[in-house]
Amino acid sequence: MNYKDLSLKKHLEKRGKIEIISKFGSVETRDDLSVAYTPGVAGVSTFLAEHPEEAKNYSIKGNTIAVVSDGSAVLGLGNIGPFGALPVMEGKALLFKEFGGVDAYPIVLSTQNVEEIIAVVKAIAPTFGGINLEDISGPRCFEIEERLKAELDIPVFHDDQHGTAIVVLSALINSLKLSGKEKEKIKVVVSGSGAAGIAITKLLLKFGVKNILMTDSKGILSKDRRDLNPEKIKMLEWTNLENFSGSLSDAIKGADVFIGVSVAGALKPEMVKTMNEKPIIFAMANPTPEIMPDIAKEAGAFIVGTGRSDFPNQINNVIAFPGIFRGALDNGVKQITDDMKISASFAIANYLSEDELSVENIIPSPLDKGVAVAVSKVIK
Amino acid sequence: MNYKDLSLKKHLEKRGKIEIISKFGSVETRDDLSVAYTPGVAGVSTFLAEHPEEAKNYSIKGNTIAVVSDGSAVLGLGNIGPFGALPVMEGKALLFKEFGGVDAYPIVLSTQNVEEIIAVVKAIAPTFGGINLEDISGPRCFEIEERLKAELDIPVFHDDQHGTAIVVLSALINSLKLSGKEKEKIKVVVSGSGAAGIAITKLLLKFGVKNILMTDSKGILSKDRRDLNPEKIKMLEWTNLENFSGSLSDAIKGADVFIGVSVAGALKPEMVKTMNEKPIIFAMANPTPEIMPDIAKEAGAFIVGTGRSDFPNQINNVIAFPGIFRGALDNGVKQITDDMKISASFAIANYLSEDELSVENIIPSPLDKGVAVAVSKVIK
Repeated sequence: MNYKDLSLKKHLEKRGKIEIISKFGSVETRDDLSVAYTPGVAGVSTFLAEHPEEAKNYSIKGNTIAVVSDGSAVLGLGNIGPFGALPVMEGKALLFKEFGGVDAYPIVLSTQNVEEIIAVVKAIAPTFGGINLEDISGPRCFEIEERLKAELDIPVFHDDQHGTAIVVLSALINSLKLSGKEKEKIKVVVSGSGAAGIAITKLLLKFGVKNILMTDSKGILSKDRRDLNPEKIKMLEWTNLENFSGSLSDAIKGADVFIGVSVAGALKPEMVKTMNEKPIIFAMANPTPEIMPDIAKEAGAFIVGTGRSDFPNQINNVIAFPGIFRGALDNGVKQITDDMKISASFAIANYLSEDELSVENIIPSPLDKGVAVAVSKVIK
Repeated sequence: MNYKDLSLKKHLEKRGKIEIISKFGSVETRDDLSVAYTPGVAGVSTFLAEHPEEAKNYSIKGNTIAVVSDGSAVLGLGNIGPFGALPVMEGKALLFKEFGGVDAYPIVLSTQNVEEIIAVVKAIAPTFGGINLEDISGPRCFEIEERLKAELDIPVFHDDQHGTAIVVLSALINSLKLSGKEKEKIKVVVSGSGAAGIAITKLLLKFGVKNILMTDSKGILSKDRRDLNPEKIKMLEWTNLENFSGSLSDAIKGADVFIGVSVAGALKPEMVKTMNEKPIIFAMANPTPEIMPDIAKEAGAFIVGTGRSDFPNQINNVIAFPGIFRGALDNGVKQITDDMKISASFAIANYLSEDELSVENIIPSPLDKGVAVAVSKVIK
C-alpha cells in the first residue's frame, strides 16, 4: 500500500489528525467546574479585560497560532479549495506541536478574496499569538502578508515563502562550506518565479549573494520581457543586473547553484554539464523534482537536494517553521525579520557538526527534534 | 482562596485551559511523516477536493465546532471584549470535550460589527462541523444567528439563547410534574427581555405554555409601551394577550412560575407571597440571583432553582450544549430545530427517575456525564 492509500485509510479511521484536550485535567467536582468555568473564570475575564497584554500568560494565546489557508495553492495540487487544504493544515498543526510544542489550529477559508482574507485574519487574531499563512497563491500572498504584518501586533509568516527560503539558505550555507565556494562570487539560478522563488531570491540577496538569475516558464526574467507581473519586475532591481535574456539552458551556463521551485524535469542532464565546477543543485519541485538525484549526479552534480524523504538532503520546511514560531512566542517577537530568518538558516546549517556534514548530509533530518530548539533560540 | 483567585492562579500556571494534540501518535520515522504529511496527505487532499462532503469523515471537521464570541456580553460582566471573553470560550471548549467528546475551538473576534461577524464566521466555516455563538449581546445576536443559519449548511446555535431555553424548559417540565400543574393553565412571568428571556419565552410557547408576561427594567411588555425595540414588540404577538401594564410586582400576582434572567434582587419576598400556590421560581441572574433560595422558600416558594452550584437545582447550560452538538455532529443535523430543543428538554428532565425527582432535585447535576449522551440521541 502506498503512502496516499495509507494516509487516506488512517485519516478515515481517526477522522482527522488533531484533537483538543484539557490542560486543567478532567472536570469531576463542583470545584473543578468552578475553577475552569463559572464563577472562577470571571476573575480571569475581568483581569484580561483590564490587562489585555496579559492574555499571552493567562490564556491559550501565548502558545497558539493559526495556520490559515484559502486552499488556492495546496502542495503541488493547485487551487483545490478549503476542504482539499484542510488535511495539509492539520498536518502542519500536528508538526507544529510535535516539533515546536506550539498549539497550532487550522483555519481554512471559504473565500479567496484578498480584502476578505485580510479582514478575516484580523478579526480572529485575538485568540492567536501568531499567524502562519499557508498555501495561498501568488501574487495575492504578497499583499495579504504585507498588510497583515503592518496591521497586526503578532508575527505573520507565509511559510511557503519564508520557511522555504530559510531552509534553502541553510542548505546553501553548508553546500558552500563543502564546495569551498564564496557567497559573493557564486552565480545562482532560481528556476520558478512564484512566491517561493521570489522569497528565496530575496533572502539570498540579503545573505550576500550578488549574482542571481531568475527564470520562469518563459525564460530568464529580464528588462526586455513585456509579460512580467509587478512582483517579477521588481526583482529586476536586484537580479540579472547585466540583463541577460534567454532560456533556462542559457541561464544555467557557468552557474554554481541551481535552485528549483518550478516543475518536474525542468533541469536536463546536459544543462548540468554546462554549470561551473562542483555544481550545487536543489531540485525541489514536488513530488517529482526538476531532475532526479541519480541523473544529476551522473551529469556531474557535486551536491543534490530535493524535497523528498526518499533521497538524501531533504530540504523540508518542517526543519524551520516549528522553531520559528516557538522562538517568536517564547521571546515576544512581533515581526519575523530578515535578520532573524538568516540567523535561523545558520542555526539549522550549524546544527550539523563538521563530522556530520557531507555532500549526502547538508541539512539536518526533518525528524530531528533538536533543530527546532536551536532555531527558536535565534528568533529574538 | 476564593474561586476567582484559584482560577487566576491556575490559568497563569497552565497558560490557558486547552491544548492541541495529535491523533496520529508521534512523528518518529519517515513513514510517520509521509502518512501524516507529505507525500501521503496529497491523497487525502485530492480526494476531499473532489468530494468535499467527505470532509466530515476524513478531517477534523466531523468532530469540531467553533465557539465564537465578540466579547460583547460575557457572563454578567458586559462588553469586556475578546480578551476578556477568551477564558470563558476556552472553558466552554473544555466542557464540550469533557462532556460531549466534541473538539471545540475558541474564536474571539476583534470586531463587534454584525456584517463583519457574519462574514468572518462564513469564511472560517469550512474547518468546522458547527458554530456555537456565545456571549454576543442582543439584539445583534438575533440577526447574526438567523443570517448564519440561513447561509451555512452546518448547525449554528447561540447558546445564551437556546441552551438557556432548553435547560429552563427541562426544569419547568419536572417542576410541573412535582406541583401537579398543567402547562396550558399556568401563568409564567419572564423577568428580563434580552436574548435569553426572548428565547426562553419562545420555547415555552412552542412547548405549549399559553399565558406568559415578559418584563424588562421598565415593567411589563405591553402594547402601551412606546420604548420597546423591534424584538420586544414582536413578542407581544404571543405574550400578554390581555395587554396588562404595570411593574414586575403587578405581573407576578397569581403567577405560577417566575423565570428570572435579569438582575440581582429583582424578586422581593412580598412578591413571592402574591403568587399562585406552589410557586416555582427560577432565579438565574449571575452571580447573584433575583432572590436568594432561602428567602424565596421562606416566602412560600415550592421550588427554587438558580444558576449557582452552591444551591440545589442548578440551571446550567452545561447540561445541554455538549449533548446538543454531540448529537448534531453524530446525526448530520444541519439545523437545531425547536422540536429538537424540546426533545432535548425532555431528555434532560426524564434523565431523573421518579425516585430521584424532588423539589430539591428537579434537574440533573451538570457533572453527570450521562446527560449529554441522552441529549445527543434526540438531536436528529
